Amino acid sequence: MTDSDMAATAVPAIQDAYPDAFAHCYGCGRLNPQGHQLKSRLLGDEVIAEFTAPQQYTGGFPGKAYGGLVASLLDCHGTASAAGFAARADGIEVAAGRPLSRFVTATLKVDFKSPTPLGTPLVIRGKLKSLEGRKAWIEMTLSAGETVCATGEMLAIRLPD
Amino acid sequence: MTDSDMAATAVPAIQDAYPDAFAHCYGCGRLNPQGHQLKSRLLGDEVIAEFTAPQQYTGGFPGKAYGGLVASLLDCHGTASAAGFAARADGIEVAAGRPLSRFVTATLKVDFKSPTPLGTPLVIRGKLKSLEGRKAWIEMTLSAGETVCATGEMLAIRLPD
Repeated sequence: MTDSDMAATAVPAIQDAYPDAFAHCYGCGRLNPQGHQLKSRLLGDEVIAEFTAPQQYTGGFPGKAYGGLVASLLDCHGTASAAGFAARADGIEVAAGRPLSRFVTATLKVDFKSPTPLGTPLVIRGKLKSLEGRKAWIEMTLSAGETVCATGEMLAIRLPD
Repeated sequence: MTDSDMAATAVPAIQDAYPDAFAHCYGCGRLNPQGHQLKSRLLGDEVIAEFTAPQQYTGGFPGKAYGGLVASLLDCHGTASAAGFAARADGIEVAAGRPLSRFVTATLKVDFKSPTPLGTPLVIRGKLKSLEGRKAWIEMTLSAGETVCATGEMLAIRLPD
């Protein structure tokens, strides 16, 4: 799915439903001009984001992302996924300006499968493994084309509204 | 331990032994002017780094780091720790310009224990859990003062020299 395909779906990004006071996250805050501004959207039974990494986020190997970027994308995408799936479970539609329950990461595990390229569209997919009380378990992949570069598993905790 | 204490030890940073071609990592490359330039030093039976996070790396909560930064610091510190412990096991002294074996992350697990403050010195400590063949298991903590903000566990893989 390309950026234009994503835009064409006209599905609001989960992060765009975060209140202004909490929208400065370096990874996904729309109000942090220096950050990644990741946008995660609930599409079918997945939450999907697309991101192309600028060259400055190189790792030790030229042309490949540093591991921290991969972990960052999975972390922000995971908590957004949890918020999106919880909203759906509560019968709340994701829309800009409509407050959603927020989740924070308790545990994030990243398995690095293959070097993550810079300057290439990456697709991050999140699936809900379970949602019980305040706990959401999210499984993720981060891919470049057909190659799965990393997988992630997150336990996210719902904050009191 | 303060920055001046660390400098006073005059222990070379493990990342300063990385060859120029591999010293552009956003997390710890000395040649990436936009990056974090983390410096990890082998001191006793630990590898220790200190880092103070600039305000731009805020998370969703004002004054606290985004989760991706925490994961980034643990990722770079973990692979540096593996390189440092492996060098010691091989009887090689860490010194700028002396090539060390490099490690890459296979798996990183981060447990977020308490919000990580911005603008406050953070201390990251790595301990060797085991070193067998090409595999190094590293355990880490990231603390602000007496508070452990996060713990990390890494499996790092040694690259062929």
